[in-house]
Amino acid sequence: MRNAIAILALAVLPSLALLGQNSSQDAKADIARVLQTQVEAWNRQDLEGFMAGYWNSPELTFFSGAHEFKGWQAALDRYKTTYQGAGHEMGKLEFSNLRIEMLGPDAAFVRGEFHLTMRDGKTPHGLFTLVFRRFPDGWKIVHDHSAGE
Amino acid sequence: MRNAIAILALAVLPSLALLGQNSSQDAKADIARVLQTQVEAWNRQDLEGFMAGYWNSPELTFFSGAHEFKGWQAALDRYKTTYQGAGHEMGKLEFSNLRIEMLGPDAAFVRGEFHLTMRDGKTPHGLFTLVFRRFPDGWKIVHDHSAGE
Repeated sequence: MRNAIAILALAVLPSLALLGQNSSQDAKADIARVLQTQVEAWNRQDLEGFMAGYWNSPELTFFSGAHEFKGWQAALDRYKTTYQGAGHEMGKLEFSNLRIEMLGPDAAFVRGEFHLTMRDGKTPHGLFTLVFRRFPDGWKIVHDHSAGE
Repeated sequence: MRNAIAILALAVLPSLALLGQNSSQDAKADIARVLQTQVEAWNRQDLEGFMAGYWNSPELTFFSGAHEFKGWQAALDRYKTTYQGAGHEMGKLEFSNLRIEMLGPDAAFVRGEFHLTMRDGKTPHGLFTLVFRRFPDGWKIVHDHSAGE
């Protein structure tokens, strides 16, 4: 009986490990897709589409340099003022050096760099740290810390 | 038999939930203690003690504003140059508005503010995002994104 259980365990455990690996790879691919969707939305001036990658909650937090903003709506309003107000433009957005790291089955964080290319030749850029959680409707950013120059 | 299992489940499940809650509370207390130990070490000019809160690995990452530093040793060297070099001082460190949030049994992130008070009256301050992981020897910061002014 013990042998049977041992054999069963030996047979099942590697598949479980493989399953874990696969679901981690799947999760990373899903998160990468959220980020890619954000970039595409930004580059067609679709701020609501960009914001779909964020948790739509008053609990969402944004650290922009040394300033804190709270809530999905406040973030959208700030993006509208900063990038769509008079005399402003959104520019072309690119992410690079993305490192997606799982922190459990339902959480991950992402380190990366953002680069904007503006019509006047300016190239604002910087680093970001994103915390992702898995919700019933997919992976969403619950916290964004970005700092640029 | 089914009833016995159902009764057993009813008896055991609430304790498991409570166990989960307790271990989450314990983990938050452990993480708060790591941060408190860091502050105490900083305030007695003990940079190695401060750095004990970080994962001692070349994989540790620091985003300081828009600049990235990699590895525990590089972080210690940078702190030494910035805060213990000629004409520099460490000041008195305080953390405030700490929000510790679990991301799973072995991961958490912390949002907070740092405040330094220097002898010349200057008060550098800013926001940080820390990603913590649980290691066999306790909770350690694996990524630090700080931005100040």
